[in-house]
Amino acid sequence: MGSLSFTNIIIVGMGLIGGSILKSLKDTMNSSNVLGIDLRLEVVEKAYDLHLIKNRSNKVDKIKEDCLVIFSVPTLSLTKAFDLVESHLETDEVIFTDTLSSKSELLNFLKKKPELQKKFLMSHPIAGSEKSGFSNSIRSLFKNKLVVISDPFNSVEKDSLERVKNFWIGLGSKVSLLDSKSHDKIFAHTSHLPHVLTYSLMDYLYKDLQEKTFLYSGGSLETYTRIASSDPIMWKDIMISNKEEVLKAIKGFNESLSFLTELIEKGDGPSIEKLLKSIKDTREGLLSKKN
Amino acid sequence: MGSLSFTNIIIVGMGLIGGSILKSLKDTMNSSNVLGIDLRLEVVEKAYDLHLIKNRSNKVDKIKEDCLVIFSVPTLSLTKAFDLVESHLETDEVIFTDTLSSKSELLNFLKKKPELQKKFLMSHPIAGSEKSGFSNSIRSLFKNKLVVISDPFNSVEKDSLERVKNFWIGLGSKVSLLDSKSHDKIFAHTSHLPHVLTYSLMDYLYKDLQEKTFLYSGGSLETYTRIASSDPIMWKDIMISNKEEVLKAIKGFNESLSFLTELIEKGDGPSIEKLLKSIKDTREGLLSKKN
Repeated sequence: MGSLSFTNIIIVGMGLIGGSILKSLKDTMNSSNVLGIDLRLEVVEKAYDLHLIKNRSNKVDKIKEDCLVIFSVPTLSLTKAFDLVESHLETDEVIFTDTLSSKSELLNFLKKKPELQKKFLMSHPIAGSEKSGFSNSIRSLFKNKLVVISDPFNSVEKDSLERVKNFWIGLGSKVSLLDSKSHDKIFAHTSHLPHVLTYSLMDYLYKDLQEKTFLYSGGSLETYTRIASSDPIMWKDIMISNKEEVLKAIKGFNESLSFLTELIEKGDGPSIEKLLKSIKDTREGLLSKKN
Repeated sequence: MGSLSFTNIIIVGMGLIGGSILKSLKDTMNSSNVLGIDLRLEVVEKAYDLHLIKNRSNKVDKIKEDCLVIFSVPTLSLTKAFDLVESHLETDEVIFTDTLSSKSELLNFLKKKPELQKKFLMSHPIAGSEKSGFSNSIRSLFKNKLVVISDPFNSVEKDSLERVKNFWIGLGSKVSLLDSKSHDKIFAHTSHLPHVLTYSLMDYLYKDLQEKTFLYSGGSLETYTRIASSDPIMWKDIMISNKEEVLKAIKGFNESLSFLTELIEKGDGPSIEKLLKSIKDTREGLLSKKN
């Protein structure tokens, strides 16, 4: 298949995202050209048994032809994962990408490696879930999902960018370009903040209500708090690596929350109604423009 | 149908909930025994045209036989709605109920009416939605949903309680009993607080991101902020009428949020991971016990 134009692919980290990439590739790539590396050996063996990868352990052959390397590890494991995979590459024809939800740590890493900057494109498939791990991975995960791609130093060749775009399009995704600083600012707002709020809400609800937490909620609270069951290591890494933007977002949210709280304290019905109506109208206006 | 054992039913307020009750009743009640009252005359006419109610305006015949009156109005309109309907009742065989999400205001109202306390059972169908109004009402709204019933002064006859329970069961719901003070405490946590947080989140996101708010969110932020499109009048009424419990819940939530925020500020990875893992485990434990 033309769009998956890499001779070899290495997936580093076979959790929900890495595993789903492997399963999505099965129809279009011969598994003898696909390698998978993971600290959990039983996952490597499982992927091998499913004929998704060539290797049955983390001992992989040296790669001598062109290759796409995809890092799909927790954010703070990136440096270690890079060192591990670099030793297997005996070719210059390599393009690197990742699937991290927060890019600040990766950006710091790349700042120290000028040569690597020309070969590293950031990818963020907006396809996460509160479910994690290889066992939850599915081949359709990327179908019709958005993948946000950044070239953080504007130094990757256009041809490489096209190949990475086409890789994701080949998995069924839509692709959007965004610079990496905007990426972390925007996702601190739209994804990291909601996770912080939901973890905190869940923490508080159980402290106060204990076994009664979900007893009268009829399903809607379960849905609302779904993301508080997300992977703790992944989200610890995101909160720490994108600390600056996350803290800004919490601060900004707190201002909005204080404003509404004060109106409730005052019992100022007309102002509350006006505020809620304006929020509702804004939200619906944004969505109607988007769809 | 035996379970819908009332000769007459009056719905006061034909929004999402009131309208859905009328549509659910259509199969089992003759519309000549069903009355509907609403400040929006076009809604009364519409319900009449759909053969859901006997009256085509708010001028309704006096009721002389046993009757269930259901108030499905915004919380702070309850007193006015009660005065309006009382003038139409020429019988003592009346049971009153409501569908309000917050009971404090209703409780204050009933405290001043000792006679009414014996006839008023609180109902809270956990079947709301961010959609509101008669035009969004559907006949299946109550199927398999929970209805929480409270007898706030423990003074309603057992027979009346059974009839109201059976009324909801007849619409396909499950019924659970809860005292009204616990009701408002629990729902301040599990429903009112999430609404306050989501309105505030949406408010902040738009202030900072404007048109970019939903641009890279791939659907999950839309789902998460769904309740920020809830009815502004209804939610203003809930925040004001359940002010005390709502403010307590905001305060408690803020403590949990501050705790996590401080860990992020310190960059204390191990403690963040431990906290997130404990929250995830608690949530999943609660849900596995429930299901």
